[in-house]
Amino acid sequence: MQPIDLARALDLILPVDPARLVEVQARINRQAKPKGSLGRMEELARRYVAISGREDIRKKVIFTFAGDHGVVAEGVSAFPPEVTPQMVHNFLEGGAAINALARHAGAEVIVVDMGVNADFPPLGGLLQKKIAKGTANLAVGPAMSRQQAIQGLETGIELAFSCVDAGIDLVGTGDMGIGNTTPSSAILAAFSGLPVEEVTHRGTGIDDPALQRKIDVIRRGLEINRPDPSDPVDVLAKVGGFEIAGIAGLVLGCAAVGIPVVVDGFISTAGALIAVELHPKVRDYIFMAHRSVEIGHGHMLERIGQKPLLDLEMRLGEGTGAALVMSLIEAALRTYREILTFDEAGVARGNDQ
Amino acid sequence: MQPIDLARALDLILPVDPARLVEVQARINRQAKPKGSLGRMEELARRYVAISGREDIRKKVIFTFAGDHGVVAEGVSAFPPEVTPQMVHNFLEGGAAINALARHAGAEVIVVDMGVNADFPPLGGLLQKKIAKGTANLAVGPAMSRQQAIQGLETGIELAFSCVDAGIDLVGTGDMGIGNTTPSSAILAAFSGLPVEEVTHRGTGIDDPALQRKIDVIRRGLEINRPDPSDPVDVLAKVGGFEIAGIAGLVLGCAAVGIPVVVDGFISTAGALIAVELHPKVRDYIFMAHRSVEIGHGHMLERIGQKPLLDLEMRLGEGTGAALVMSLIEAALRTYREILTFDEAGVARGNDQ
Repeated sequence: MQPIDLARALDLILPVDPARLVEVQARINRQAKPKGSLGRMEELARRYVAISGREDIRKKVIFTFAGDHGVVAEGVSAFPPEVTPQMVHNFLEGGAAINALARHAGAEVIVVDMGVNADFPPLGGLLQKKIAKGTANLAVGPAMSRQQAIQGLETGIELAFSCVDAGIDLVGTGDMGIGNTTPSSAILAAFSGLPVEEVTHRGTGIDDPALQRKIDVIRRGLEINRPDPSDPVDVLAKVGGFEIAGIAGLVLGCAAVGIPVVVDGFISTAGALIAVELHPKVRDYIFMAHRSVEIGHGHMLERIGQKPLLDLEMRLGEGTGAALVMSLIEAALRTYREILTFDEAGVARGNDQ
Repeated sequence: MQPIDLARALDLILPVDPARLVEVQARINRQAKPKGSLGRMEELARRYVAISGREDIRKKVIFTFAGDHGVVAEGVSAFPPEVTPQMVHNFLEGGAAINALARHAGAEVIVVDMGVNADFPPLGGLLQKKIAKGTANLAVGPAMSRQQAIQGLETGIELAFSCVDAGIDLVGTGDMGIGNTTPSSAILAAFSGLPVEEVTHRGTGIDDPALQRKIDVIRRGLEINRPDPSDPVDVLAKVGGFEIAGIAGLVLGCAAVGIPVVVDGFISTAGALIAVELHPKVRDYIFMAHRSVEIGHGHMLERIGQKPLLDLEMRLGEGTGAALVMSLIEAALRTYREILTFDEAGVARGNDQ
């Protein structure tokens, strides 16, 4: 396959046809139940069917992007950086939360090494797309070059395009990278201009002194790097991460090829935010999985303009929220396919509003 | 089996052992992930395992209780009463929302005729427990006799007891009954003393004049019947419904035999509320499925003291929310069984709080 570059992918993104959404909802409205009574389950069915043109899901894949972060040198995480490669191994052996939840959802997990600070032998389930062994420390300079940022985006875009021929009808995003709530908060601060302390939180569970350090680090990173909010690639390069670049590219690529994409929690949403800032119509293809505990998440969701489906006080990443929502979309499609209409079921209509 | 009477079932209800909850959570805390990072999924696993003593679910059943309501004569519903038996047929033929969602969750649906105003021939999947062909009009007198209320409760209790030998490890509640948001709001008003207009809403989708009628009808029903909030059986008899009695009994019975029970939406919660008012420890066994659109639901949830898992703007009943949460509990149990510990996975620990 010809590699798809960023500009080409952006050109391909079209809004979801509003007439198609109306048509799908009209069919839902003929089903024997009070109008609108399945609430957001109807929204899931309506949007999935309108985006994909399908009423079922052949294959579901969660791409869990992994990368390391130079900024961990500043003491911003509760976990040591060697946990990133250790968790990659855990994913590949099927022992992590995302594996358990993907099995529940009937989804495959594909781990993408975007920039882990370790060498992996060839391993089943691992895509080796390493850009570098971790980003540079964003507190002292750009996390990556502009070229690397584009490489990360195009890696994700390429994965989305590869889903078309593979019969993958629903994609989920996930992340692994010790320290990656720091770039995620920095990305949000860069786009929104919100005070850093309003978008920065405890990640995997840091204490008060570490939280204050993290806030200071992000402030310094923004001052030194001056990311340009009108240039999302610049924001990604200056204060982002390699796994975030991959997620942004995947989300953008899904919009380009018309595959619905379930965006997981805080880090995945930072990636999705970059994609939406690159092209506003990307939002039409996004299903926002859940509201994370991270305080910045709500601001990201507002900018993206999609409401999360779940609020289960989760803050794990990996794609765990996406897996749960994939199952919810399956359930919604079942209601779409299987609920009889008033006429089919011989049920009297109401005068419901 | 000896029939279990209400007093006997109440005697059997014990609080869930707090030491067991701590023990289960301790195992969760050894899993390779930041402490508490699966949020309410951990709560689901912890409570299910502590209640049932199991780490898996053999069989799941949703009992959908059906009944008619004399109060529909007052014009309080957007749908005609013949829809109750029509929907019972639809359930038995597998064409309703609850059937689609139960298939998704791998749960069986059992329909219980508690008081439908129609005769059914023997039908697979239907339990014939009819108390009467609909309640009396609660706006002019008691909906049912005290004896009928107890019969309804004991029918539900008996079903819970029958689950033990059948290997049913997770029970869900559901309802069908045109007009049944009216008794549900009346039950809440009776226990809480809240103004009727704060607990009464649009049910299946009534317009403003019908909503005003519904509020007036509930006010009249409370004035005429004067249900005694310290006597839950009296509240059920005066302003309740037969399907609500069955649900209340089922929830109470599940607490008595130690089976976790997923309570669906507004009508099911009215039943659960009666059970909790009969014995406060019933709440330990309840998983509250979702927050209904009905404005009274939040007040019920507060009295019961369990927080709903989902908020998907649903207002259909039948057990649809319960089915979704059964699947969520399955997912939570998978994480409990399948996530490796830090030691097993060879992942370094953090200093997370």
